[in-house]
Amino acid sequence: MGTGSSPCASCKLLRRRCAKDCIFAPYFPPDDPHKFAIVHKVFGASNISKTLQELPVHQRGDAVSSLVYEANARVRDPVYGCVGVISYLQTQVSQLQVQLAMAKAEILCIQMQSKSAVAHEVQQMDLSNKSINGSSQLMNISSESFWA
Amino acid sequence: MGTGSSPCASCKLLRRRCAKDCIFAPYFPPDDPHKFAIVHKVFGASNISKTLQELPVHQRGDAVSSLVYEANARVRDPVYGCVGVISYLQTQVSQLQVQLAMAKAEILCIQMQSKSAVAHEVQQMDLSNKSINGSSQLMNISSESFWA
Repeated sequence: MGTGSSPCASCKLLRRRCAKDCIFAPYFPPDDPHKFAIVHKVFGASNISKTLQELPVHQRGDAVSSLVYEANARVRDPVYGCVGVISYLQTQVSQLQVQLAMAKAEILCIQMQSKSAVAHEVQQMDLSNKSINGSSQLMNISSESFWA
Repeated sequence: MGTGSSPCASCKLLRRRCAKDCIFAPYFPPDDPHKFAIVHKVFGASNISKTLQELPVHQRGDAVSSLVYEANARVRDPVYGCVGVISYLQTQVSQLQVQLAMAKAEILCIQMQSKSAVAHEVQQMDLSNKSINGSSQLMNISSESFWA
């Protein structure tokens, strides 16, 4: 008997006596009959009971949660169930990996362009300075030749 | 009876006569007994039969494939099954989304730094030119004052 005096949701649905050590009772309280109904519909009470019995007590709660999730997915999508969700997520992972690879390539490209732009500006500046220095030197030469 | 004269893998395991219109036969051939054994262990033959009956014929093949995948995942990981795969993929999606957001932010940052670096070089070049032109003008003035 799980909580209080009511039989657990599983025993209520299966119309059987809810024993003190009922394996379902801790996970299927009487106030949430849908939770057991859906896993019973997809997996069957006997398979759930076997799965829980084969697991240590501290892992049974997680197992029930994952079975409920899986059963809901199968009821929502009877053809693909959870596998539909997996397929969608795998596509999302692939798309994100492509986008990330493109972004990384863009970073490299911009970094190279940036270096190249700065180098170009420096080169232009050097050329411009040389040209100006050339004129100044020419002027110095004329001034010097005047004083010579 | 699915293929040839042998009963299908399901009817063989369930020790029953494999009828001509057996719902399992097209998907569970006798040469792959493990395929039915695993879905039977996880979902139960009765639930699989119900699921297939509720689907149009052209979707049953996909449904069997997803049930086999799901059953294999549950046998491999009795606590989380397919939900463990979903959880892993969701984490991967989140990590990739963060990495992509960081890469996009880095692109913006580099683009701004690049513009700023070019602007700085141009400014430096202008200042340098002005300084050289200033000296030249000074020299012109001295030359002019000499001729004046």
